[in-house]
Amino acid sequence: MTAKFIVIEGLEGAGKSTAMQICQQFLADKKIDFINTREPGGTPMAEALRTLVKNQYEEEVAGETELLIMYAARAQLLHNVIRPSLAANKWVLGDRHDMSSQAYQGGGRGLPQATLNSLSDIVLQGLKPDLTLYLDISPEVGLSRARGRGELDRIELEAIEFFEKTRSRYLALAESDENCVVINAEQAMDKVHADILAALENFYQQVNL
Amino acid sequence: MTAKFIVIEGLEGAGKSTAMQICQQFLADKKIDFINTREPGGTPMAEALRTLVKNQYEEEVAGETELLIMYAARAQLLHNVIRPSLAANKWVLGDRHDMSSQAYQGGGRGLPQATLNSLSDIVLQGLKPDLTLYLDISPEVGLSRARGRGELDRIELEAIEFFEKTRSRYLALAESDENCVVINAEQAMDKVHADILAALENFYQQVNL
Ligand SMILES: Nc1ncnc2c1ncn2[C@@H]1O[C@H](COP(=O)(O)OP(=O)(O)O)[C@@H](O)[C@H]1O
Ligand SMILES: Nc1ncnc2c1ncn2[C@@H]1O[C@H](COP(=O)(O)OP(=O)(O)O)[C@@H](O)[C@H]1O
Ligand SMILES: [Mg+2]
Ligand SMILES: [Mg+2]
Repeated sequence: MTAKFIVIEGLEGAGKSTAMQICQQFLADKKIDFINTREPGGTPMAEALRTLVKNQYEEEVAGETELLIMYAARAQLLHNVIRPSLAANKWVLGDRHDMSSQAYQGGGRGLPQATLNSLSDIVLQGLKPDLTLYLDISPEVGLSRARGRGELDRIELEAIEFFEKTRSRYLALAESDENCVVINAEQAMDKVHADILAALENFYQQVNL
Repeated sequence: MTAKFIVIEGLEGAGKSTAMQICQQFLADKKIDFINTREPGGTPMAEALRTLVKNQYEEEVAGETELLIMYAARAQLLHNVIRPSLAANKWVLGDRHDMSSQAYQGGGRGLPQATLNSLSDIVLQGLKPDLTLYLDISPEVGLSRARGRGELDRIELEAIEFFEKTRSRYLALAESDENCVVINAEQAMDKVHADILAALENFYQQVNL
């Protein structure tokens, strides 16, 4: 079985970090060799870009600037971590990936689809996750969970409408992606846990044939 | 007369900073209101990107990462400085602009033309300099001048072949751009100075008709 690329997606507070732990346990139980990534970030240079894009500035941050920084970090992570790992037959488990840019910068910020397509083509060069778990949650519930975690960054401080548009785009993308499973992340933790495990088990059965 | 966008281009040590001073004096003499920019950089966020891209890392820096950071910085500068300045009828005098990305990342790094075209389209949205002064110099002469200035950064530390490819691309771009004047930057300072002034005066006569 060749190494697979699994991605967890969703708004802030949807439960991505929690889901990462569930996936890690699942892969460990199956004796699968894997690495974890997070985006933006995951290499020293990409983490520096993460800090830079989440910081607040006195100047306005142009939508294109934000988008290009996200893809710069992604290009770096793909070059130094994701592609080498898959090539060495280690699975990759990602906390966010391209779908986040499509949803936040495309849906939330309203950047043109043609712009997003160009950048995806340049940076991904056809690579796409084998499985995406999209944790669907309303911005109200997600943000109230995230606030419990501490200070919000520049993007997390956006108005609720921004996250509504981001969520709508996430749902549209999930709908049209046959490798994406939507998890109702507003359920109680044990129910979310069970849904994630079921999706992972189903995926594993399919790829392990 | 509407505000114009003048750009100085060339390899390290070609004399861009020196040429900026000549242009500044020229514009001041003509009582033209102008601002100076440099790329990558020119806003707090873009300067942070400049530092980040010039730093050295233990990891390899992917060509696409470097390119996307350059365009992220450019998008920010265009949004907060160049476009507002031109809209307020202030001229813009730039130490490097898009031609640097075309020459260094396109020529030097060998990134595909289609990639560069996509990014130019997304970020420039049709804006182009009214006048570019390309200071042509061999890498040997330019780098020996630049070394006199102190520590070299990550890009300045590239092998001579990188700069040869960058220079060739610069020359090809200058050839096909009717708004670009090539200055022989290997000449003595006073001769370079005179050539720059002649190009500026000629440009000024044309736009001031
Ligand atoms: N299903 C759930 N119900 C209630 N709280 C949850 C649930 N899933 C996660 N949480 C809590 O919500 C907060 C945010 O979860 P986290 O996994 O950090 O989200 P994310 O990484 O998507 O921002 C954490 O305190 C977490 O324990
Ligand atoms: N025509 C010239 N002949 C000799 N030295 C020059 C000439 N033009 C500039 N210099 C010197 O070369 C060095 C690099 O010039 P500078 O304007 O900083 O180049 P750049 O900004 O293109 O890197 C400086 O020390 C400068 O004084
Ligand atoms: Mg998290
Ligand atoms: Mg200089």
